[in-house]
Amino acid sequence: MSDARAIRLDNLPKAGFEDRLKLAARTVDGALAELLPRPAKGGPRLNEAMLYAVLGPGKRLRPFLVLESAGLFAAAPPRGPVRVAAALECIHAYSLVHDDLPCMDDDDLRRGRPTVHRAFDEATAVLAGDGLLTMAFEILAAAETDADPAIRCRLIAALAQASGANGMVGGQAMDLAAEGQTLDLEQIKTLQDLKTGALISFGCEAGAILGRANPDEAAALAGYARDLGLAFQIADDILDTVGDAAEVGKATGKDADAGKATFVSILGLDQARIEAQKLASSAVAWLDRFDFRADGLRSVAEFVVERRA
Amino acid sequence: MSDARAIRLDNLPKAGFEDRLKLAARTVDGALAELLPRPAKGGPRLNEAMLYAVLGPGKRLRPFLVLESAGLFAAAPPRGPVRVAAALECIHAYSLVHDDLPCMDDDDLRRGRPTVHRAFDEATAVLAGDGLLTMAFEILAAAETDADPAIRCRLIAALAQASGANGMVGGQAMDLAAEGQTLDLEQIKTLQDLKTGALISFGCEAGAILGRANPDEAAALAGYARDLGLAFQIADDILDTVGDAAEVGKATGKDADAGKATFVSILGLDQARIEAQKLASSAVAWLDRFDFRADGLRSVAEFVVERRA
Repeated sequence: MSDARAIRLDNLPKAGFEDRLKLAARTVDGALAELLPRPAKGGPRLNEAMLYAVLGPGKRLRPFLVLESAGLFAAAPPRGPVRVAAALECIHAYSLVHDDLPCMDDDDLRRGRPTVHRAFDEATAVLAGDGLLTMAFEILAAAETDADPAIRCRLIAALAQASGANGMVGGQAMDLAAEGQTLDLEQIKTLQDLKTGALISFGCEAGAILGRANPDEAAALAGYARDLGLAFQIADDILDTVGDAAEVGKATGKDADAGKATFVSILGLDQARIEAQKLASSAVAWLDRFDFRADGLRSVAEFVVERRA
Repeated sequence: MSDARAIRLDNLPKAGFEDRLKLAARTVDGALAELLPRPAKGGPRLNEAMLYAVLGPGKRLRPFLVLESAGLFAAAPPRGPVRVAAALECIHAYSLVHDDLPCMDDDDLRRGRPTVHRAFDEATAVLAGDGLLTMAFEILAAAETDADPAIRCRLIAALAQASGANGMVGGQAMDLAAEGQTLDLEQIKTLQDLKTGALISFGCEAGAILGRANPDEAAALAGYARDLGLAFQIADDILDTVGDAAEVGKATGKDADAGKATFVSILGLDQARIEAQKLASSAVAWLDRFDFRADGLRSVAEFVVERRA
């Protein structure tokens, strides 16, 4: 994040962004519906739970980042971005299923619907999560993702790092350990960087890998993703504070009720809003080297800090 | 399984087998201790739970199959088999951690020690399992596993298929669905083939992939693994019936108590023993094309039906 990089977001193209986001979501959902084993050898219930988890309502923001990042580069293979986007959504969906379990956050509601362990049962939720996690790597390993196996291995290594014990799973563990602790701003940033930022960063990194980006292009996308991820998380904390449960689609105010430190509790609501805007501007500034094809990514930065759900 | 293939197991070399198994276990444990993130970014508790799960007492039978299968082929890379064996053990260990959870089998004891959710807590057990599962693919994707990324992608695809919704996770789901049902012999075979057989088969398949086995060699190893996996599962049911909990290291008689159909409940104890022996002989017969380097695999077949724990 750098003030010098801050630009005015309202100069950016907005027309058609939401349509573009919806089209991407439909494309990725279609790919997921095809990729998921149906009927699975493990029986219909496991299968239904996996589909329920991964095809539920959602913005598909992470898949969108893969598609838009890969779209910057002519070298990206035609089917690869959609498949990688689907794999990333499998990881995101599994993490929500396990995170909602009674022994974790114990949530009954997710994206406005009963969570998987409420709609099915706890054991099925554990297994559906495991199945989706495994599925992500099966999708990436297949030749349809990219004809070059070295590219596929880079994607797999990057996704495993972003989602494992030194990434998202590590962030969840830090979150558990933080209960009853008072975290400072740097600690919250680290926690959120692992828990949420790592997968968002993977979305852009995957686009760069598929697109055979040069090191400067890859670094610019990584900078964008880092700022975007933090802006996203601050906006999430703001929504958790001021949002309406019906609109957000999950219980709000939970962090405050649990006494957890958040960006809002540390910075205050006004400063958190300013910070999120600054980060979004800084994210956009990283994209200066790219032409109009980066407009989707530019709009995302605006979207994440303005969204109401 | 074929009677024509049956040979006398007691003619096989036995000397040194248990030492060889122990040496393999030490080698793989050493690799795992190196490969696991320490300290993990997610904090020490997650890390300890992952190490506790993966380095607990155990025979390391699946890793042994990788090492011995790869050992048949001069073309296998030097470090690859140990890394693949470690990845396979990560998957096996994660599956035990999740399987032991209160919402699944609700076991307090595993390999003679408290299960992960008893030694730590449920949330940490879920995350440690997720971390180990993810770790397996990170290990396989790295260039140290095999210089050829096409080989690494084949290993990743095979492991994902063996352990996902159409493999081990599918078997667990079938097991859940079977509660209160009466399965026949074919259904139990299918269930066990997914739940246990798939990972055992991957062990041998991985050796064939790393060793650049020709199709006949790969088919022989696949046949061996199929018979071995079934023999292993029948022996497990026998141990569950007649075994001593202290020696087996986990609660015994659970399946019978739960009214679950097992090979023993359907075949009877005597016939189950005969069947396991026949399968072990048949497994060994698949190895006829290999020289003395397959003696470790031959001994495993004998070991799994004679083991008391």
